[in-house]
Amino acid sequence: MARKASLSGFPEWLPQERLIELHVLDTLRRVFDLHGFSNIETRAVETVDQLLRKGEIDKEVYAVSRLQADEASASEAGLALHYDLTVPFARYVVENAGHLAFPFRRSQIQKCWRGERPQEGRAREFTQADIDVVGDGVLPFRYDVELALVVVEALGALPIPDFTLRVNNRKLAEGFYRGIGLTDTASVLRSIDKLEKIGAAKVGQLLREELGATDAQVDAAIALAAIRTPDTSFVAQVRALGVSDDLLEEGLTELEQVIAEASKRAPGRVVADLSIARGLDYYTGTVYETVLNGHESLGSICSGGRYDSLAAKGNRTFPGVGLSIGVTRIVSRILSQDFAAVSRQVPTAVLVTLADEDSWSAAQDVAASLRARGISAEVAATAEKFGKQIKFADRRGIPFVWFTGADGTHEVKDIRSGAQEAADPDLWTPPAEDLAPQVLRVP
Amino acid sequence: MARKASLSGFPEWLPQERLIELHVLDTLRRVFDLHGFSNIETRAVETVDQLLRKGEIDKEVYAVSRLQADEASASEAGLALHYDLTVPFARYVVENAGHLAFPFRRSQIQKCWRGERPQEGRAREFTQADIDVVGDGVLPFRYDVELALVVVEALGALPIPDFTLRVNNRKLAEGFYRGIGLTDTASVLRSIDKLEKIGAAKVGQLLREELGATDAQVDAAIALAAIRTPDTSFVAQVRALGVSDDLLEEGLTELEQVIAEASKRAPGRVVADLSIARGLDYYTGTVYETVLNGHESLGSICSGGRYDSLAAKGNRTFPGVGLSIGVTRIVSRILSQDFAAVSRQVPTAVLVTLADEDSWSAAQDVAASLRARGISAEVAATAEKFGKQIKFADRRGIPFVWFTGADGTHEVKDIRSGAQEAADPDLWTPPAEDLAPQVLRVP
Repeated sequence: MARKASLSGFPEWLPQERLIELHVLDTLRRVFDLHGFSNIETRAVETVDQLLRKGEIDKEVYAVSRLQADEASASEAGLALHYDLTVPFARYVVENAGHLAFPFRRSQIQKCWRGERPQEGRAREFTQADIDVVGDGVLPFRYDVELALVVVEALGALPIPDFTLRVNNRKLAEGFYRGIGLTDTASVLRSIDKLEKIGAAKVGQLLREELGATDAQVDAAIALAAIRTPDTSFVAQVRALGVSDDLLEEGLTELEQVIAEASKRAPGRVVADLSIARGLDYYTGTVYETVLNGHESLGSICSGGRYDSLAAKGNRTFPGVGLSIGVTRIVSRILSQDFAAVSRQVPTAVLVTLADEDSWSAAQDVAASLRARGISAEVAATAEKFGKQIKFADRRGIPFVWFTGADGTHEVKDIRSGAQEAADPDLWTPPAEDLAPQVLRVP
Repeated sequence: MARKASLSGFPEWLPQERLIELHVLDTLRRVFDLHGFSNIETRAVETVDQLLRKGEIDKEVYAVSRLQADEASASEAGLALHYDLTVPFARYVVENAGHLAFPFRRSQIQKCWRGERPQEGRAREFTQADIDVVGDGVLPFRYDVELALVVVEALGALPIPDFTLRVNNRKLAEGFYRGIGLTDTASVLRSIDKLEKIGAAKVGQLLREELGATDAQVDAAIALAAIRTPDTSFVAQVRALGVSDDLLEEGLTELEQVIAEASKRAPGRVVADLSIARGLDYYTGTVYETVLNGHESLGSICSGGRYDSLAAKGNRTFPGVGLSIGVTRIVSRILSQDFAAVSRQVPTAVLVTLADEDSWSAAQDVAASLRARGISAEVAATAEKFGKQIKFADRRGIPFVWFTGADGTHEVKDIRSGAQEAADPDLWTPPAEDLAPQVLRVP
């Protein structure tokens, strides 16, 4: 499970690997459906203007153009592949606002493209699974709590090690920095975002050099970022730093609500982490990041936040909150670390053998009876010796072979145990665990 | 259901339209799984060389490049979005031959891109659903019969009008043309391919002018293309034209096998149609096209054929046979003609209401109990008056609302009928037809 992609950064899976990816995708979709999210897709391309307005680094964007431009392709000038699903979703909401019922709960699971340097967990073509709730004008804060719980449930259903959803709040951080006299809060956030990578000393140096921060300001900012609690005790810890600011209070109250509910409903999996900054400018309140415990270097597997004005139409705004799960990042790690195994490589449960070349049509009848009851079946293509037909099934991982005698009697053989029994094509059913390939967590 | 895409040729669906598309995609995947096809995906990009080698018109191809090229992006020069799934699959087979069990049965459902002039049924971004069987060196002819039956079953499970799978055989056509002395069979095929569009007279003119065909040759070629039978009687009709050729005989035998079995297993849905040529050069035997009856102008909704040497690795070849279903073409027609309706617009079956703001967490417990039994549920975000909460559900198409009294008793109301009854969150289940949105064929 460590083949090299023929084009760096564009992973492709073998059929048995794809079964694991499908299991991840199906699981996420099922959880999103159970929570009432409407699935949509958006086109793969956006205008370059639309993409760059949200502040992404432009060299990471893949432009799209006709190989041979002509007059008909002029309307397509300035198109590029989307690098996430949030920006396209914001456009979709604005364009279709008249057709949607707000608050609009949507899930979206699609490929994205970014020209980043490939490494494990960072592909150039990758699948994201997003959920967002968007309101018309207002959106109750409660959705910030709910969405954290939905992704915890979704990630908890995947064959991965335990994980930690780290939550912070932009208002809390910005209010605190303002309260200690650092008014360029965006720049402070950018420096604090580097804490895990370069350490407190270098972040302090950045704050001093770039923002002219005093030692006291640096100490306070770094003390805030050091706070991490699995419960609401962070509130007291922040208060102990002695900073007072209205926005800080608002942020504290919001984050307290998220952590209070989450620590009750998903104990141990959600923590307040006041170092989380998130690079993107459009977040305005709650921000989320998620790490796989013991695999922190993989980076965040699920991130997001609250944005108050990503989408706007005239003076109408559509505030939202959402999270994005990095499906390809997760699947790559499942495959490279063998977190999961699949019970067989093909969907087929039964190979219907051929006694002679003329029995192909009768064998199709048997297969059709099995399929009508949800049992995946295929018919041997040629009437080779039974030993060869069984070997064909074995090589592909098909667990059962079916024999029809000249007298019309049927038998089915489990080629793993060798057990063979009489069977009726309209009645026989394999054990539940053999009905379809099973993806199992490896302990 | 006739909104205009904001970017011509790049359709996007509303949530209720997407439910119909998802139904189509899920149905196809289920049928493919039941027939033992392993699902895979390939990357969206191929090298331009790889794409153009297969003879596509280059101006239809979308090139991909970094918006700001740098040294790191040099390895990506000459990339383009795939325009179908056959060419990428051929590459995948060659690259992964050592990891696949042959004959390899694969399904692949993905987006493709072509810069064609947009019209209904012809988008620039569209989804194809392909099945192919590929052998290592050899591939029994029987798969040509089987794959026709699989797509007939798959299309028959969709909410569309009846359809006709038209089958021809390149060997039959080429042998016949050779037999009447027209040796540039590729050129004859190209002219015959235009029959439906420009008529017999103009095709005859083309054959005379471009290939120097005699009147007798033109008459014979057009007589062959006029043969269309729902059974194997085409064999006698071809023989009556008095042409003799080995390749013709081989083609007749092959096509007879397909039609004999198909007319038995899928009566009326598969016909021998000797005018079918298929534009692509790589087909070497059976060719398929499918039209929706009464919607022939939409073009083919499912096409394909046998190819003997699309994929090769040194002197090893991987012959295959496959068909490609035009999902976007089908879904566009379902939506524009209202062939199908969806029972509701959201996955949610139950809205759990809030009696007061403090009951949110208890309401989440109710919702969690429902979800644990597969019932999609969401919780109201704010404790507005019940009338407003019911209106919220009604506007989104959620059929049931749940009430929890101060005494801990539960009631559930069907807001369509107004019927309200006591209910236990661990036991209550909606009628089966209300569990999830149902996509129904409109009679």
